[in-house]
This record gives sequence, structure tokens and C-alpha cells, in this order.
Amino acid sequence: MPLTPETLSTLEAQSIELPSWAFGNSGTRFKVFATAGTPRDPFEKIADAAQVNRFTALAPTVALHIPWDKVDDYAALRRHAEDLGVTLGTINSNTFQDDDYKFGALTHHDDRIRRKAIDHHLECIDIMDATGSRDLKIWLAEGSNYPGQADLRARQDRLQESLQEIYARLTGEQRLVLEYKFFEPAFYHTDVPDWGTSYVQVAALGERAMVCLDTGHHAPGTNIEFIVMQLQRLGKLGSFDFNSRFYADDDLIVGAADPFQLFRILFEVNRGGGLQNPDVVFMLDQCHNVEEKIPGQIRSVLNVQEMTARALSVDGDALDAAQRANDVLGANAVLMDAFYTDVRPALAEWRESRGLAADPMAAYAASGYQEKIAADRVGGVQAGWGA
Amino acid sequence: MPLTPETLSTLEAQSIELPSWAFGNSGTRFKVFATAGTPRDPFEKIADAAQVNRFTALAPTVALHIPWDKVDDYAALRRHAEDLGVTLGTINSNTFQDDDYKFGALTHHDDRIRRKAIDHHLECIDIMDATGSRDLKIWLAEGSNYPGQADLRARQDRLQESLQEIYARLTGEQRLVLEYKFFEPAFYHTDVPDWGTSYVQVAALGERAMVCLDTGHHAPGTNIEFIVMQLQRLGKLGSFDFNSRFYADDDLIVGAADPFQLFRILFEVNRGGGLQNPDVVFMLDQCHNVEEKIPGQIRSVLNVQEMTARALSVDGDALDAAQRANDVLGANAVLMDAFYTDVRPALAEWRESRGLAADPMAAYAASGYQEKIAADRVGGVQAGWGA
Amino acid sequence: MPLTPETLSTLEAQSIELPSWAFGNSGTRFKVFATAGTPRDPFEKIADAAQVNRFTALAPTVALHIPWDKVDDYAALRRHAEDLGVTLGTINSNTFQDDDYKFGALTHHDDRIRRKAIDHHLECIDIMDATGSRDLKIWLAEGSNYPGQADLRARQDRLQESLQEIYARLTGEQRLVLEYKFFEPAFYHTDVPDWGTSYVQVAALGERAMVCLDTGHHAPGTNIEFIVMQLQRLGKLGSFDFNSRFYADDDLIVGAADPFQLFRILFEVNRGGGLQNPDVVFMLDQCHNVEEKIPGQIRSVLNVQEMTARALSVDGDALDAAQRANDVLGANAVLMDAFYTDVRPALAEWRESRGLAADPMAAYAASGYQEKIAADRVGGVQAGWGA
Amino acid sequence: MPLTPETLSTLEAQSIELPSWAFGNSGTRFKVFATAGTPRDPFEKIADAAQVNRFTALAPTVALHIPWDKVDDYAALRRHAEDLGVTLGTINSNTFQDDDYKFGALTHHDDRIRRKAIDHHLECIDIMDATGSRDLKIWLAEGSNYPGQADLRARQDRLQESLQEIYARLTGEQRLVLEYKFFEPAFYHTDVPDWGTSYVQVAALGERAMVCLDTGHHAPGTNIEFIVMQLQRLGKLGSFDFNSRFYADDDLIVGAADPFQLFRILFEVNRGGGLQNPDVVFMLDQCHNVEEKIPGQIRSVLNVQEMTARALSVDGDALDAAQRANDVLGANAVLMDAFYTDVRPALAEWRESRGLAADPMAAYAASGYQEKIAADRVGGVQAGWGA
Repeated sequence: MPLTPETLSTLEAQSIELPSWAFGNSGTRFKVFATAGTPRDPFEKIADAAQVNRFTALAPTVALHIPWDKVDDYAALRRHAEDLGVTLGTINSNTFQDDDYKFGALTHHDDRIRRKAIDHHLECIDIMDATGSRDLKIWLAEGSNYPGQADLRARQDRLQESLQEIYARLTGEQRLVLEYKFFEPAFYHTDVPDWGTSYVQVAALGERAMVCLDTGHHAPGTNIEFIVMQLQRLGKLGSFDFNSRFYADDDLIVGAADPFQLFRILFEVNRGGGLQNPDVVFMLDQCHNVEEKIPGQIRSVLNVQEMTARALSVDGDALDAAQRANDVLGANAVLMDAFYTDVRPALAEWRESRGLAADPMAAYAASGYQEKIAADRVGGVQAGWGA
Repeated sequence: MPLTPETLSTLEAQSIELPSWAFGNSGTRFKVFATAGTPRDPFEKIADAAQVNRFTALAPTVALHIPWDKVDDYAALRRHAEDLGVTLGTINSNTFQDDDYKFGALTHHDDRIRRKAIDHHLECIDIMDATGSRDLKIWLAEGSNYPGQADLRARQDRLQESLQEIYARLTGEQRLVLEYKFFEPAFYHTDVPDWGTSYVQVAALGERAMVCLDTGHHAPGTNIEFIVMQLQRLGKLGSFDFNSRFYADDDLIVGAADPFQLFRILFEVNRGGGLQNPDVVFMLDQCHNVEEKIPGQIRSVLNVQEMTARALSVDGDALDAAQRANDVLGANAVLMDAFYTDVRPALAEWRESRGLAADPMAAYAASGYQEKIAADRVGGVQAGWGA
Repeated sequence: MPLTPETLSTLEAQSIELPSWAFGNSGTRFKVFATAGTPRDPFEKIADAAQVNRFTALAPTVALHIPWDKVDDYAALRRHAEDLGVTLGTINSNTFQDDDYKFGALTHHDDRIRRKAIDHHLECIDIMDATGSRDLKIWLAEGSNYPGQADLRARQDRLQESLQEIYARLTGEQRLVLEYKFFEPAFYHTDVPDWGTSYVQVAALGERAMVCLDTGHHAPGTNIEFIVMQLQRLGKLGSFDFNSRFYADDDLIVGAADPFQLFRILFEVNRGGGLQNPDVVFMLDQCHNVEEKIPGQIRSVLNVQEMTARALSVDGDALDAAQRANDVLGANAVLMDAFYTDVRPALAEWRESRGLAADPMAAYAASGYQEKIAADRVGGVQAGWGA
Repeated sequence: MPLTPETLSTLEAQSIELPSWAFGNSGTRFKVFATAGTPRDPFEKIADAAQVNRFTALAPTVALHIPWDKVDDYAALRRHAEDLGVTLGTINSNTFQDDDYKFGALTHHDDRIRRKAIDHHLECIDIMDATGSRDLKIWLAEGSNYPGQADLRARQDRLQESLQEIYARLTGEQRLVLEYKFFEPAFYHTDVPDWGTSYVQVAALGERAMVCLDTGHHAPGTNIEFIVMQLQRLGKLGSFDFNSRFYADDDLIVGAADPFQLFRILFEVNRGGGLQNPDVVFMLDQCHNVEEKIPGQIRSVLNVQEMTARALSVDGDALDAAQRANDVLGANAVLMDAFYTDVRPALAEWRESRGLAADPMAAYAASGYQEKIAADRVGGVQAGWGA
């Protein structure tokens, strides 16, 4: 099946933001496995991210995580990125790895700690000014482990106050994007556990405050594409954190656990105009615990691209007609037909027509980059996250 | 442990609305078991509901379900209720048992069907005018079973339009309360699946539109008391449908599956002022598939009362102090201490002081009412619901 | 991609058993919608099932449900089936629609009721003798709704005693297949809730007692292909009840909710030899609540066939090599490559080469059968199940 | 309510094994918080564990984790324990923190790695010989993250082979106890994911191989007391790992998340004779991420004791009578009556009669031990686990 010019034009404009931290080591609470060639600083992470873009032309921006990616000279980091053909994207704050934040950060009852957490976000905005980033993404690990431990309501109010102060510091096109998560690392309550909470918090801030939807951050059985629809309907879908999961927030490669779900999500994004809307940022947020990291990211952006191609192939007129006729099987068949169509050969061809390798995974493997970094990056401390 | 005068005064004001349909037969998709003495019309249902109030003084209002409780003369039904010491409460609409609604009601793409569904709600408001009911409760069974079957976004927009027309018909103190439900009877998507959707729908209507929280309508692992907190914070908690569940929407007796969760919910209701707030309606919505119905309802209202007494017994000052000290175990202990305290003897004593039987379950069993209705209600069609 | 001769030969031998009850009306506890043309007796159900086989050559046997499919003359029913090109398959017992079974059947503490339930199964074996069926499938709706209601242990022991008596009655090649289910219609405990319980119950019976795996009967997040592997490893996988689900036991069309899961299951069946093993019966067990029933069944058998073709296309040598090299991404890619390959054109071609319509859905729609039964089957009581 | 002499005698014999690792630091993949006074070696861990026993007389044994608790001289460790009034209990193996085990240990396809993992277990049995421990507990973190990554079936077979070699090394009264876990740290498949798999693996070994049930290792909605019943019925319940959870394997304090579930479990343990059976070991396996560790363990053993007292208070005759009468509400009420009874005053009194503090939490807090270790244990590396 050839892809239509319209589909190709949408695909050509598709841009997926890579998380710098995906190139460092990650793991579970039980163990983080080390791997040869892991970056030791933000410059090396960006170099790796640039490889993903080099072979796919899909990943021109790299998100940073502060303080993991703190450097003395952000202008230098920016030039480094641009020299490698990518730019710096979303700035992610981090309030979960400081002993002070054991019992909260933006929601903490202790003014000193809350001040510190707010200041950290103001510093992130300073960095955005330096990097030219538009978005400040806030994921809060805050919550409690035992009933009674915390005052749910007071924390919610303090969260709003904190966010208002951070929001007030934004300038120009800058945005605040608030992520929600069902649970983990807190086990009893989480301060921003669902899209509803994120929505009411950002709606109270203003137009440049949006919701971030991480595809792994929902209760079992949640219909995620419904939330995609609703947030677009409300004009509040700011960004995606793509990944996949079988059980909890597994942070596996996007599309790996339930490819059909990814298809449905992308179909709904497109139906709501999100594929053509620069306000909806496509990001990855994954952990490559056991697989190689750069190939893992290449695989991920290809998964998004391939599934987008399938979602764009849905015959909208036929779907609409079947829906209006209450033809349940017919309407479902229109969707399934697009899902089951193998778009990979057409994409490989198109890739070649744009001067890219038909098979980016193979091309990267053949490039020698992995062997080079494994040899070069000996000594130093491998970048990582977690405990 | 004696209950404080404050606690007793709150308990004295507590009022739990009974669902008329709890007295009819219910079951699963596999089987509805019949039982002797089941009411055959709305008058008999109200007579049974009045028994619950007679022995507990906790249940002075009865919610109706239209068309199940349609009668020719609502004034007569109202007098019948008042003669038995109860009043008519919330009117529940029903758009899930007409063949026309197979593919939707308030969200349907067919104007004729949507019109019919809106008109049904306008008729419900007429009934409210006749019964003196304040609340119109809307639970929508609408959704789809297969991806592609329905246009999620268009349905959401049509839902808002339909609700606006219904809302516009309300007068005086009347309210519209919109219930959400995670899934069932639709299996792929539900049009109002979560509190966030219910909230944005009613917030767009106006001040007298509120959210109804059914405790069985959430994904596994959902922290329900957090939602209670959030809805109270937003001023949009209109009512509860109390019941309990192990897996899905099991509609078991409130407090039966997870008594500690009921405690936490009531604690949060009280913390948000909901126990003293007439805008928050306490309703039961349960199915007594295998147990006797009137005793099942008596057990239910007692469960709510007992757990409310425990929630009111939490030492707020000690809790606050422990929370401020980040004393995790101490704060949790304050909560657990109240939960583990046996309030039943004090409640029995207090009940007697008010001229009620110490043990309402035993008093009802001894009253002979069950034997009487089993003997009297022979012939006719037992009331029920479902397929 | 052409299908290999080996794949085609396996596909040619594939046989999927249809449930007679899929052609009757079904629904949820809220509503069963009626549809034109619904069969009114077992003969009409078999006629409809034969249509599925006529257009797919995939469904040569029909499972019966007793008492739903009770007839005076099973020899006549058998001839009726054979005249239509199909045979009678598994006999399913039913102990969930008699008032006597409200609190249990094969597990009941009352000897009279347990005797009745055992006798029902002995009668089912008599019917098997008449129909030539090999398998007696037992799904038990037994359990309890409230903690304390039942003695879990005594019921388990009584279940074993009951099954032994039933098993002892089997002759020749006849088998007993015991299905498990996570929950519903009982909400607190189910007497055969998981594969482990079904396994220990049938292992204690003997070689001709097996486990039935219904793909919709597991807790959220359960890895079903692991259970497929384990049961095959233990020699106890007797049959599948295929369907799909988003939340609970939704009984949707197989492959509709999570096609990749169906692929993984079929891959594991094949890896364990189950595709060539007549001891593993492929059955459907679905409810077509809102979609048309005969097309729903055609869609279902095609889904199984298409996914089987994909599973058979996995490059086993490449997979093995990647697994041995701990090449996580490479091994996963081997699987995904087969999953994403569009086998539909090759199957359509192959179908035509066997004298079948390339598109069975379209061919059935064009056949006029649906219109004919809608016109003919007026009057009488439509077959259905449930309350 | 006074406790009966029978209850008191059962409670007096109750013994709960503490995990040495509960006294070290633990956390999530995001962060491990350090706390003052954390033990720096196995001797200090045992000293802390002895405090729990000192104030509760409930925790006379301490489980070790190898290699975390490796010492040069196990005889010295044993004497150290005995001097402090406790003994060394279960030896837990660990195959999840060595880079070699990234893709498996006892299931690995590489003979060298599998050999290493088996040898580790043989070493653990050597340690058991030295410590006088009866049980070798095996929890396997093995599994895979992506479909196709691993050969499920071959791993299962290799697991059996490995276990047979380990089992063969046991002598005298020694036992092998195999734990199962639903997921984590592997996200796609786990090699021992459910009780059924653990059961078939240990049943194939022999009489001294048993199942370990960790209360946090099940899918959402699993009826754990049913599994307790079944394993006791099969004679294969070897031990408990007690903890609690809201979502996944949260490892919270036992009884904290769902006290009623703990009650039901203990009721079923007692009904199956497990409270009097030395073959059923009661262990804790918890992580005190945010709360103090020694008080956390004291709270935990008290929770088990209090809930055991409630479970023992169930009126068995009344329950049996209600069950036989199909009196659903009556039977449930018997259970709930015991659950809601406040046993704490009677236990406090009884504690005092045995020379213990009425309130062990307060007594520990007043003892000055926490301040002493915070002051003494400065410098060195705090014990911990995880990444």
C-alpha cells in the first residue's frame, strides 16, 4: 500500500523529542545494570541522541533533566547540540532526589522546603531562557505512603500556590506542562494522580499551562485515547510522554506492550488535530534497563512513526459512514484494516527517497558508533538516575 | 469509648437516601434470583424503605428511578411516603433499557433518539416538581464496545449540548448531578468514565450542576478519598452512591469489601465539611443479589453510621501535630486508633436513648414484617431491574 | 509475503468450535437487546453456525449448552448438523440458572442440591453419548459475595468429590474439561478462580481431565501466554475459550481488544505443539451484545486464522539465535516482524484457491442469508441467555 | 471483651520472623533516603531486630539475606543473636544483584551462569548448616521485559532442573521454600509469577519443598485467602511474607493498606490449622522507605498479633450455623463482629501480665535506643538494598 502525499507530508513534519536520561543507565529498585559506552555527561548524552536523529530524521530535539543535565555553560551545550543537528527541548525539573523532599516539595508544609522547590523551578526557567526551550515539564513524585501521613487537601492548595509562583515567572512563549501519575514512588496517595487533577491545577493557572500525558501513568484498564480526546477538546493537551507497560509504570519501548493501543492513541491525536498542532509535543520517556539504549530509542521513534502512518491511513469517510449506520463490525473493520496494513515497506522506500537508510536499526548497527563509544567512554561515572 | 456530644450531634443529623430499586430483585447477566416478599410496585418499595428508617432513624428519604417507579399520581406516592415517615428524594433517569438507546442516548448521533433522551430527562424534572425532589441524577450507560464504533469527541460535544438543555429546565433549588463510571455496560469506551469528565461537563453547565461519586465506579487501585477531597475542594461533590466492591462494580453492601476504605472516605468527607453540608447527598446504590433486601439496607445504613462515628473520632489535633512533625507512624496511628475503636456499644446505647432498638437488625427480624410481606405479596410481577 | 506450505498445511487443519449460544441474544445485567433473525431453537442456531463454516471452512463443529440446547431427539439434531456440514462438539453444562443453585451446585453443602448438580452432569454425558461429543466442559458460577458467607475449604473438597463422580461416568475417549474464572457472577470468592485451582482439581481426577483456558477470565495484567505454556508443559491444556476484553469478562470478539496478546498466545500454543495437537480444542465463547451475530462469528474465526498465520510466520531460528545472544531488541524484532506482516492478501488468495470467497465477510453479506432469517424467524421466543 | 484462654495460648505461641533487611535503608527506583542510626553490618541489624522482640515477645527469629548478611563467622553471628535473645531463621538467596544475572539465574540458558546461581544456593545451604536455619527461601527476580526476549518454556524446564540440584543438597529437616511474584523487576514475564507455578515446581521436588506466599505479590483483586486455603489443603503452604499494598508490591507495613484483608487471611490460616502448625512460617518482608524502621517492625508484629486475636475471636459455631442456613448476612455478621471488636485493651492487659509494656511502641520510644544508635552509628556504610 502506497502512502498518500498527505500522509507523507504529515510524517515529514513529525518530530519526537528524546529524553537525555534514556541514554544513561536506569533500572529497578533491585538493580541498575551498567553497560559499556554509557554517557558520562550531558554532552555525551546529546551526542547519542543525535545518532537517533541521524538515522531517522525523526528526533531533532532533546529534553533535559535538571539537575542531571546541569552544566556550567548552557550556551555551549546548545551549540554542541546544534553542531550535531539537534536542539535542546523541554526542561524537566526534579524534586525527587534530594533528602529535603522526602515528604514533599511543591506541596510541603514546611515553607523552607517548598521555597527551595519553587526556586528550583525558577532556576529551570532560567535554564530555559539560556537553552531557548519553550516548555517546563513538571512531574511530581510527591505523595504519602500511609493513610493519615499527609493532609491531602492542604497539599493540593499549596501545590496551586507553588505553581502560580512558577507560572508567573514564565515569559513569552514559555509554557508549564504538568504531568500526572497514578502511583509510584508514593504508594498511598499521589498529589497529581490523574488527568482531572492535572487539568484543574493548570486550568487555574492560565493559557500557557498544559497537561502532560504519560502513557504509562494510568490505572489498569484506563482508556487512554479517551483522555487524549478530552484534553484536546479542552485545549489542554500539552505533551506526551510515550512509553509502554504491561503492569505499572514499566517505561518500556513505546508500542512494545500494546501496539494496538498506540494506534488508537495516535488515531485520536490525529482526529483532534494534534498531529499538525505544534502545541502537542511528542516526547519519549522510557528506561532501557536491559536493552541497548541508542537502538532502543531508534526503535521507539520508528514505532511512533509507523503507527502514525497506520493511524493516518484510516479511511475517515468510510469510518464516518459506518458509525452513522451503527454498523459496529464495519466501523471496527475500517480501523483494523489500517492497523493491520503493513506500512513498513512504503516507509522504507520513502526513507530512502529522503536520503536515509531504509532500515535505520541496521544502519546504526553498521555505523560502528556503538563500538566506538564502548571503547572511548571508559572511566568516569556513567550517567544514571534513581537511587 | 463514649462518643462526644459533637459526634452525636453530627450523627443525629445524618441522613442516608435509599434507592427504591434496592428492594426489587437484581442479579448478574447470568441470573436474577427471585425472593419471597419482593415489592411489585413503587408503593410497596417505599413501604419497605420506610422499615429501614423505622428501625434506624437514618434513612428518611427514598430515591426513585424513572421509568421503574412511574406512577399515575405522584402526589399520592408522596403522601404514601409521608404517611410512612419518609419523603421522596433524588429522581434517577434511565436511558439504558430502551431498544432505541442501544448505541447511545444523550450522546447519540441520531437527533430523534437524542431528542427522546432529552425529553425523558425533562419528564423527570416534571416528576421532581411533583415529588418535591431537589436532585436529578444522571447515570449514562452510554459508550461503545469496539474501537472505531463511535466518535468519542462528537459524542462528548453532543453530551454537553444535551445536558445544557436539561439543565436549563431546572428551577429554584433543583440540581443536576452527573455520575461517572469506569466501565460497564459498555466495554471499550464509556462517555463519562471518570470524575474529570463528569467535572468538566458539569462545570460547563453552572453552579447547580454537580458530580455524583459512586464508590464502585473506579479503576482498581484508585484512591477514592483523594477524589472526594478534590471534588469538595472544587465545590462540586453533589452526592455519593455508596456500595462496595472487590473487582468491578459489584454493588455489594457499603463497607463490606473494604471497611477501611469507607473509613478513609468518610474521614475525608468530614475533613472537607461534607458531613455538615446539605449539598452532599449520601445515597446507597446497591444490589442485594443473594442476601435479603430490607436487612441488607439496614446493615448498609448502620455501616455508614458506624464508620462515620469512627471517622468523627479521629483526634484532629494529634493528627495535625504528627503530620507537621513528619511522624509517619504517629500520624497513621491516630487514624488507625479511631478505625479500630469499637463504636458499636456506644451507638447502641445512644440508639436506645432515642427510643430506637439497640440492635436494628434483630429488631427488624423480630418485627414479623418480612414474614408478612412474604405472605401478602403473592401474585403480580416482582419489581426488578436489568435485562 | 507468501505463506509457506507448512503454514498453509497447519492452517488447513485448523478447526475452531463455535458456541451455539453466540447466535442467541446476550447482554449485560442492564439490558439484553433483541435482534431480528435470532434463532428460536437449537436447530436454528446450528443452521447459523453452519453459515460461518460455509464461508470460512474454519468452523466445522458446534458446541452445545445444556439445558439451553436440550432437544427431544439428539440423533435428529446430529443429522441436522451433518446435513449442514458441521458436527456437534463440546457439551457445556449449566448450573447457574436454577434457583436451587443460588448458593452453589457441585460445591453445595446441601446433599440434595449437590446430587442434582451431579446428575445434571451425568445427563450431559448421556447427551455426549448421543451426539458423539468428546468433551464435557464445566464452568462453575459458584462462589460467594460476602466474606464468611461460605466455607472455602469445604467447598473445595466437595467440588473434588463431585468431579470424581462425574469423571467416573466418562467412557472411551470422553474428557472432562474444567474452566476457571477470576470473578463473576460471584464477587467475593469463586470456587475455581485460577488455573492453579483448575489444575489441582483435574490432576486429582486423571488423565482425561483437563483445564479450559478462557482468555477473558484473568486478573488485569495477567500474562496469559505464560499459562498456555505452563498448561502445555504439564499436559493439561484441554481447550480454549477465545474472546477478548478491555476490563473484565467482556466476551468481545477474539483479537478485538488486544490483537498482539492473541498473537503471543497463538505463538506460545504453536511453540508447545498445540496447533497440531487434537487434544487442544479451539473454541469461541463470546457475546455479541451490539453487533450482528453471524458476521461477528465469521470475524472471530478469521481473526484466529489470521493471527495463527502470523504466529506461524515467526522465524524460529532467528528468534532462537537472538535469545541465545541476549539480543533483547533483536529477539523482540523477530516477533514483531511476524506480527506486523500483513497476511491477509495471502490468505485471501489461498482461500480462493480452495474455492472459498476471498472475503468471507463480504460474501456472507451478499448471500442474503441475514435478510432471509430476519424475515423467516418472526414469532416464537428468541434464544438467549442470562437473567 | 476478654480473650479466651485458648486464644491467649495460641497468641503466646505466635512467632513472627523479622527480615534483617528491613532495618537497612530501602527505597524506590527514584530514591533511597538515608536515616540516622541505620545498621552498617549484620550484627547491628540483629541488634535492632532484637529490640522488636524485646518489646513484643513476638519476634524471636531473624531471617538473613545472602550475600547482604555474609559474615566471616556465622557461629559468632549466631551467638550474637542468641545473646540478644533471638535466633537466626530463614536464609534468603539473592540472584538479582549481580551483572551476570541480567538475563536470568536458575533459568539462564548459559550453563556457566546457571551453575553460578545453583552454587550460590548450595552456599546458602552451607550457611544454613552453620546457622541452624531450617528454611532456604528462594525468590527469583527472573523474567523478561519484551515478548520474544526469552523462551518461556525452556526457562521453566531449566528452573526445575536447577531446583532439583539445590533440593538434593538439603539434609534433615531442611526445606526449600519457593516464592512467587506477579511482576517486578521483570515487566513482561516472570518465571514464577503465581502460586500455581510455584506449586507445580515444588510438588515436583518432594515433600520438603513448599510455597511461600508474599501478600503483596498478586494481581489486583486477587482473593489471597483463597490461595491460603488451597495451599494448606494441598499441604504446601511453607511460609508467608507479610506486608501490604495499595497498587503493586508496595511492601508497606502489614495490615496498613487493607486491615480487613489481613483479618480474612489470618482467619483462613487458622481455619486450615496454620496457626498451630510449625510448618507455616510467619515472616515479614517490608520496606520502611519513609518511616522509622524499628518502630515500623514493632507496629507490624503488633498488627499481626492484634489481627490474629480478632481472627481467633470468630464464633465458629455461629458461623457454621449461618453458613448451613444460607444466611448470608448472618454469616458475614459473625465475621465482621470479630473484626470490629477492639482487642487492643485485652492484649495490653495480657502483655502486662507477662511482664511486657502495655504499649510496645511507646516503650520503645521511651527506651532511648533510637537516640543511642543515631549517635553511635556514624561513619561506615549504611546497609541497604536495591540498585
